[in-house]
Amino acid sequence: MSPLPEGAKRSPCPIATALDLVGDKWTLLVMRDLFVGKSKFGEFEDSPEGIPTNILAERLKRLEAGGMIERQPYQERPVRHAYALTKKGRGFLPVLQTMSQWGNDFVSGTWVPPAFFMEMKV
Amino acid sequence: MSPLPEGAKRSPCPIATALDLVGDKWTLLVMRDLFVGKSKFGEFEDSPEGIPTNILAERLKRLEAGGMIERQPYQERPVRHAYALTKKGRGFLPVLQTMSQWGNDFVSGTWVPPAFFMEMKV
Repeated sequence: MSPLPEGAKRSPCPIATALDLVGDKWTLLVMRDLFVGKSKFGEFEDSPEGIPTNILAERLKRLEAGGMIERQPYQERPVRHAYALTKKGRGFLPVLQTMSQWGNDFVSGTWVPPAFFMEMKV
Repeated sequence: MSPLPEGAKRSPCPIATALDLVGDKWTLLVMRDLFVGKSKFGEFEDSPEGIPTNILAERLKRLEAGGMIERQPYQERPVRHAYALTKKGRGFLPVLQTMSQWGNDFVSGTWVPPAFFMEMKV
């Protein structure tokens, strides 16, 4: 097989390549939180799914290494960082919107997201 | 918190609910294969990512339990099954299409999927 695209671990399939970066049950929840305005470690931790602290730290590192988010210090002593989506990360919005629509269409009782989220453009 | 929607494990968020079912790096590759016409265990195994046999068996069971696929025997002695997407499973197509588009847009060198896949309607 020819060399894999950067970041791809299994094949050049674009879906497999995406899943090599975000294919787990937590990463896209952190991205969801970023899209709705959260930016800080404690804010992600406070989301209702209760992401474990060590998993959150690892996923943020992985998203940053994969070019999906970037971090900036917002406080010194101790340094704390705020996270923001990059262009590559914002490009994932349609995946989250279609996933959200699927949940609303096929699983009764799921939350209907705020209109601004479903109408947001990349 | 009020009772969770059926199948949801962490919250009523539609994205979290979807990820409770397909949030790993293999499940959506099996669904991709189903959308492009594969239906048999050996066909999923032959995909270029090389899904391990035990993981494939577990994911097929989980997708069936979650109402995303159904299976029919196509051979007796030994019985072998073919798998097909349900309406709920087919509803996931836009997620795969947007994920594929993201890969093509942001990761150079990823395969461009056949037009029939990107133009397919639920």
